[in-house]
Order: sequence, then C-alpha cells, then structure tokens
Amino acid sequence: MRPLCTSLIYVLAVLGLEAVMQKECEIVGILQDKLKYKERLQYMKYYFPLNYTVTVQYEEVLRTSNVSRLRDEAITEPSLRYLWFHVSSQVVLKIRDVLPEQHPSWSYTQELCDLLEGLGVEYEKYKQGDMDIVVADLVKRIHDAEAGSNRKPVRPKALLDNCVKVMRMLYSTPCKWDSA
Amino acid sequence: MRPLCTSLIYVLAVLGLEAVMQKECEIVGILQDKLKYKERLQYMKYYFPLNYTVTVQYEEVLRTSNVSRLRDEAITEPSLRYLWFHVSSQVVLKIRDVLPEQHPSWSYTQELCDLLEGLGVEYEKYKQGDMDIVVADLVKRIHDAEAGSNRKPVRPKALLDNCVKVMRMLYSTPCKWDSA
Repeated sequence: MRPLCTSLIYVLAVLGLEAVMQKECEIVGILQDKLKYKERLQYMKYYFPLNYTVTVQYEEVLRTSNVSRLRDEAITEPSLRYLWFHVSSQVVLKIRDVLPEQHPSWSYTQELCDLLEGLGVEYEKYKQGDMDIVVADLVKRIHDAEAGSNRKPVRPKALLDNCVKVMRMLYSTPCKWDSA
Repeated sequence: MRPLCTSLIYVLAVLGLEAVMQKECEIVGILQDKLKYKERLQYMKYYFPLNYTVTVQYEEVLRTSNVSRLRDEAITEPSLRYLWFHVSSQVVLKIRDVLPEQHPSWSYTQELCDLLEGLGVEYEKYKQGDMDIVVADLVKRIHDAEAGSNRKPVRPKALLDNCVKVMRMLYSTPCKWDSA
C-alpha cells in the first residue's frame, strides 16, 4: 500500500499546488491587464512631472537580465516568482507613497497594491520555507530599510516596465499565456 | 489757451491710462478667479508628487514682504505691478515646463500663460520706458538665465500662493476689488 499511498499524496500535493498556481495566474492575469502599456504611460509618465524619479534600493530594480542570471545560477522558478512579487510590491508601495490621495494616479497604484496583496496571500500558502538562499537574502535586503544598500533614482514608469517584463518572463509558461 | 490745452492733454492721458488699467483689471480679475484656492490646491498640490519642487531664481520668489519693502523704497505702483507680471509669467512658465502636455495640470498652466500673455500686451502699451531702476534691474535678472543669482527649490503651489497674495496687494485698490 505504501507506494500507492505515496503516489496519492504526491498527486494530491500536485493538485494542491496547481490549484494555488491557478489562483496565482488569475491574479497575475488581472495585474497584467492593469499594467498594460497605455495605463503605464498615462498613470506613470503623463501624470508625473517630466524626469521625475522615485528613489529605490538597488535590489528593487529587477530586470529580465537579472532574472536570466539568477536562472543560470539554478535558482528555482518559484523562488524567482517570489522575488518578483516582493520587488513589485515594494516598488508599487514606494510610488504610491510619493502621491497625495487626490492625485489621479493614486487609485491606480492602490489597485495594484490590492492585487499584489492578494498575490501575497497565495505566496504565504506554500512558498515561505522553500526559497533559495540567494532569493531569501535579496528579499531580506529589500525589506530592510537600514540594509544600507545603494539607492538610485528611477522613473516610476521604468519601475513598472521592469515589473511587467519580468512578470511575463516568469508567468507566461506556467500560466499558459499566449506569447502574443 | 495753453493751460486749457495742457489740461485737456492731461485729461485725455488719464482717460487713456484708465482705459488701459480697466483692461488690466479685467484680465487680472479673470486670473484671480483662475487662481482661487480650490484650483491652486487641485492643480498645483494634489496633482503633483508630495514635496515636489520647481527650481526658480531667487528673484522669482516675490512675497508681499518684498513688495512692502519696495514700497518703503518709494517704488511706484505701476513698477511693482510690472515686476509682479514678470515674476508671475516666469513662474507659470517654469511650472508648465516641468509637465508633459498630457498632465492634468498642463492645460491649467497654459490658461494662466495665455492670460498673462494678454496682460503683457497691456503692459507694453505704456509701461516699458517708465520703470524704476530697481525694478528694471530685477526684471532683467529674472530674464537672464545666466545671471548666476541663487536658485532655490519651491513647491508649485507656494509659487502661485505668492503670485495671488501679491496680486491682491497690488490690484485691490486700483481695480476696486472688494476686500472680502
């Protein structure tokens, strides 16, 4: 009975993970829609003064090239998605925090915050103890305001452009998005 | 006949000046309406990131205290209004220049620019050669980007707050505005 039982547990675990991933894909799908180019352009560029920048930590500038490098270091995909989630959440919070509530981009950033918060609930379910040490360290640094890492000024739209590009890189395959 | 003729010329000159002042009052009246607190709050504070500043020249921060000091130095009222016009025009241009055309405050600043441009036409009619040397020097410095005077960062709303306060100080009496 043991092999059968083990298989059953494995199947149930996979089904459980798939159910979680399904919810994750659903939220990230809505995020993708919210973050489409037209919206980013309007809320993150046109509604800000020219050349306006937000100061972020070095680790909060997560580009596709960084993710490729981490993949080369055999960092797992769930770890990379976990990293993307933390970077994106922090970045959106930082953009929202420079805006008065009456600013025409405030509600937009609040909607992004809410969606990312919903995604955070999904991540809490199964990923907390299972992160690559490199990613765990990066996430710790992102949340540690006193970490003393380099800070840099980045335009709000550039931050969300990175967020979208890395999101597509990490979710297109598991969420079966069309590449178009 | 000479005294009568002189009186006639004087009367005609006064009537001419009054006609010009009437047009000036009309434009500044519309400006006052455009610059009311609610509009300044919305377009110059809520629609900008928190603590956002525009860098202006030292001479472009024209407060009521500066005008009082200039009055104590016996600077004429037309000269003071001429100074206020140049400072206000430069300040509004500087605010507009930091905004993309699609920004929700851009049209507002453009409307202010148009009104100030209309006021400039009135000033050209009779004030050019008749300015106190102190004011002429200040205006020259404002328009000379290379003047090398100190620059300071000031919030957009604070710049327009100064603009409104000085406007009321200088136009309330000649334009017979209610002090309420």
